[in-house]
Amino acid sequence: MSREIFDICIVGSGPAGLSAAVNAHVRRKKILLFSGESGLSKVNLSPRVDNYLGFPAINGNDLYQKFKEHVEEFKIPLVPQKVQTIGPMDSLFMLQARDTVYESKAVIIATGVAAQKLIRGEDAFVGRGISYCATCDGPLYQGKVVTVLDYTGEGAEESHFLADFCSKVYYVNMTKKSPAFKKTNIEVITGDPPEEITGGDTVSTLKTKSRTVDTDGVFIFRETYPPGELVPGMEIEGGSVKVNRKMETNIRGLYAAGDCAGKPYQVAKSVGEGQTAALNAVAYIDALELADT
Amino acid sequence: MSREIFDICIVGSGPAGLSAAVNAHVRRKKILLFSGESGLSKVNLSPRVDNYLGFPAINGNDLYQKFKEHVEEFKIPLVPQKVQTIGPMDSLFMLQARDTVYESKAVIIATGVAAQKLIRGEDAFVGRGISYCATCDGPLYQGKVVTVLDYTGEGAEESHFLADFCSKVYYVNMTKKSPAFKKTNIEVITGDPPEEITGGDTVSTLKTKSRTVDTDGVFIFRETYPPGELVPGMEIEGGSVKVNRKMETNIRGLYAAGDCAGKPYQVAKSVGEGQTAALNAVAYIDALELADT
Repeated sequence: MSREIFDICIVGSGPAGLSAAVNAHVRRKKILLFSGESGLSKVNLSPRVDNYLGFPAINGNDLYQKFKEHVEEFKIPLVPQKVQTIGPMDSLFMLQARDTVYESKAVIIATGVAAQKLIRGEDAFVGRGISYCATCDGPLYQGKVVTVLDYTGEGAEESHFLADFCSKVYYVNMTKKSPAFKKTNIEVITGDPPEEITGGDTVSTLKTKSRTVDTDGVFIFRETYPPGELVPGMEIEGGSVKVNRKMETNIRGLYAAGDCAGKPYQVAKSVGEGQTAALNAVAYIDALELADT
Repeated sequence: MSREIFDICIVGSGPAGLSAAVNAHVRRKKILLFSGESGLSKVNLSPRVDNYLGFPAINGNDLYQKFKEHVEEFKIPLVPQKVQTIGPMDSLFMLQARDTVYESKAVIIATGVAAQKLIRGEDAFVGRGISYCATCDGPLYQGKVVTVLDYTGEGAEESHFLADFCSKVYYVNMTKKSPAFKKTNIEVITGDPPEEITGGDTVSTLKTKSRTVDTDGVFIFRETYPPGELVPGMEIEGGSVKVNRKMETNIRGLYAAGDCAGKPYQVAKSVGEGQTAALNAVAYIDALELADT
């Protein structure tokens, strides 16, 4: 059996991975798209996306279906497997997925960020009162009570934003900082870790160690797992894959795009980066081929 | 009359500018969007866009109309004027447009790239056989004859791509390089500058100084005007506004996005960068306000 070598393997099928696939396909490259075991994206969970240009006020799941249809229309091969490890070998990459090894000239990592779900009840209420993005979901809570759980410090600015139109914002400070809010509808809870989220159809209360707070929504800002374990030697900076403006990592032929390449964690940013990574990977492969002649 | 100070002024209403506007609006900032005198974008001219995720195979003008509708649905104020100059003053920017000066805390430049139209007939055939993007329009010329006018060197790789599915590619080399093509359907024309493009409904011939070539399409790759003249002191690199991964320029509070910030010149990349620029401008303004308290 002859070895099959792909031009570009794309790891991850969220907005960044799908955009990379569409762009590499348009440039007539031989590609494989790994979707992981579930084939789902975080976008699925967002009740409404307002800021992906061309689709005002669309449900996250509907938007993701449009993305998938685009890829299906182009008949792009999708492998429903999780890539366990990627090894740079000479001028090729070896990708290990389940019991198969794939070989590729270039690789684009678009694995997103893994949300650590730690609070009791959090998993059950995602998309039903729990959110990880105030820009995306904040406007749904106009005139309502929300709670921000801040593990990273970014929740302070987000609370400031939410307080503009929510009736009340509880700010549960799990950081070492002490932000000073001037808005009087922000109440700071310090030294009192969150323990459980409860509700009926949607979230209704947050229990901390020492009190119970009635709330319509909970926004959680938390560090994520570092993506560095996928590729030995790939440089990480501030928890994200370190890339330049061409979405190149420190390893030649290896690109990253989307949430795994840093903030903001947003659909349009991911789609744009997927495109940039793919077109630069295409140029990289073409340069290899021209050098061969 | 009291001074009116905007949070974010956005200069340019192509995909990057519109995306920045949508994102700044979602974050409830007071914005102004300058569309220039024509209000048009280069996207309008593309007969087909295949690689903006969510819209497979859409006409460029139709896609741009979807973008405009998104902005109109949000009732974002649009100023149909060209910004002549932007002056950083203390912690504010002064924007001069026609006879009015606008003040803004942050500015996003999304002015695109100015295509220098130099060859006789070029202007008349844009979108009717003349293109500036092989990725976008190349697939329309399956089995046909195309001509690449290369002033920058990027036309070599593009010719390589086009030769995969066009019957013949004339490569008019206006660079100092001598690319070696292995594909036999690429014919190199050297030392023979293009002078005129002619045709009927669409392009049919290219005249160079010494010969006339029958061609169905002409792809032009050319340096563009530097965007640096808009803002004194703004750093330029390789003809583009120099930005980091946050789309920050070298001037605090000044961001750039889209084609003016560098290649690839593509819709999704521009939309993503507009989003990143807007969200970072929002964070910049919020930090200014928190510092004020």
